[in-house]
Amino acid sequence: MSNTFKDYILQPNDQLMGLTQLVNGFDQNGQACEINVVEEQPLTIFLNGQEIVTAMTIGDYPQYLALGFLKNQGMLTDNENILGIDYDDELQTVVVRTDGKTIYEEKLKKKTRTSGCAVGTVFGDMMEGLENLKLPNVEFKVSWLYELSNIINQTPSLYLKAGAIHGTVLCCKNKPLVYMEDVGRHNAVDKIAGWIYSNNESGKDKALYTTGRLTSEMVIKCALMGIPVLVSRSGFTAWGVEIANQVGLTLIGRLRGKRFMCLAGKDRLIYDFE
Amino acid sequence: MSNTFKDYILQPNDQLMGLTQLVNGFDQNGQACEINVVEEQPLTIFLNGQEIVTAMTIGDYPQYLALGFLKNQGMLTDNENILGIDYDDELQTVVVRTDGKTIYEEKLKKKTRTSGCAVGTVFGDMMEGLENLKLPNVEFKVSWLYELSNIINQTPSLYLKAGAIHGTVLCCKNKPLVYMEDVGRHNAVDKIAGWIYSNNESGKDKALYTTGRLTSEMVIKCALMGIPVLVSRSGFTAWGVEIANQVGLTLIGRLRGKRFMCLAGKDRLIYDFE
Repeated sequence: MSNTFKDYILQPNDQLMGLTQLVNGFDQNGQACEINVVEEQPLTIFLNGQEIVTAMTIGDYPQYLALGFLKNQGMLTDNENILGIDYDDELQTVVVRTDGKTIYEEKLKKKTRTSGCAVGTVFGDMMEGLENLKLPNVEFKVSWLYELSNIINQTPSLYLKAGAIHGTVLCCKNKPLVYMEDVGRHNAVDKIAGWIYSNNESGKDKALYTTGRLTSEMVIKCALMGIPVLVSRSGFTAWGVEIANQVGLTLIGRLRGKRFMCLAGKDRLIYDFE
Repeated sequence: MSNTFKDYILQPNDQLMGLTQLVNGFDQNGQACEINVVEEQPLTIFLNGQEIVTAMTIGDYPQYLALGFLKNQGMLTDNENILGIDYDDELQTVVVRTDGKTIYEEKLKKKTRTSGCAVGTVFGDMMEGLENLKLPNVEFKVSWLYELSNIINQTPSLYLKAGAIHGTVLCCKNKPLVYMEDVGRHNAVDKIAGWIYSNNESGKDKALYTTGRLTSEMVIKCALMGIPVLVSRSGFTAWGVEIANQVGLTLIGRLRGKRFMCLAGKDRLIYDFE
């Protein structure tokens, strides 16, 4: 492994096997050719006996995905004791088990009885965790931004091999630590969350880099993980910016080369780069 | 309107008002600047009394979005008689009303009773409609592909104004007809579906162009709309290619300039371009 990538704890390099397929096709001249395309498969996430959602995923780190999803959706709180996370390759299911019914399961039972559907509650539940959130007042240097972007863009990845995939990278200062990829940008973020919770890591001294757009959901997930800085090479939505301002998150988008836009939380930025 | 865009029945030009917001921010030098960002708001879709899903959307054409979503998910079939589609701007809800309980509501009632969650069924339900599907054996010229791509790229759009948005265009031969945009590529496709069903149009002589990736869900939605050709400037997933082959859909991706890849249904293509 090159010295450039020495700080990674997890990087796509380790995951390339079995996550892409060589497919036959034809180019613009009608000539036969072969290209690499990413895998995509359903994974059904259960919380104890309750089926929660079927996610479309490339299929790596199903346990991180399930744990991170349930945490980020507010379906699993810190009050709950996780006994185990069981992945069944054949059934394409992953079950997160706690030592008793969770608050979410109780709420869902009530909600289902009153005719509402589980899906609709998801967003409201996510917003619930934000009210008392206070993100740490750390500094973030612009030079780190450029270093991170430079290393991440060079990191061997499914994106470079097959395209059509989103990447999310958990970073600390100028070092990328954990690089996850998935067909949906939300899955990639949820896998990062799963890694954080599984390893008892904290988000407070971290930044999150994503190739995806900075929508409300991405901003909420980042804030719930306690990460004060969210960076993307892609653009913004109005609501994403509004929520970032509300929770005091530093939101940086349209990062290309040495250009970027900061639409919230500029006070954390140190302009140490000429 | 320029002559280039004369064939559009609906194009983003008509929708630009109120769908973006001017937001204050700072650039890479710490200089204050203003940029346009797209709106994003929740819209909760009901089927009669049943809450189905809360979608994040830019907010235009809520009726098309609701109808198209329910049709594309197999929650509304041709057997059902739609009495009305009511949008409430303040509550951010849209209710599709039929003259009696739908098959989906009955299924959901049973499913909820047996402890499964509504979310998990969505994908299975979508696949159900594919078994007996036969897409028409029409020709599609490569020269049309280049003309379409050229016009679509020049069409004034939210994408050109604010970025961070997906576009989907319903086309007939070399003419783009209906151009929808939304924060999620699925919403844009669902709004196209809603337009098709509302106007008693058919997909059989059409092609669908999308800026988003060709995942399984996009391929399934296109096939369910009866559209035999799906085109994207973006890439593929393995399962998207597999389903396209199964249902006999022509799948064209990575369309940039005069380059593209066809990974399924090449028999429809006429290479009339040197």
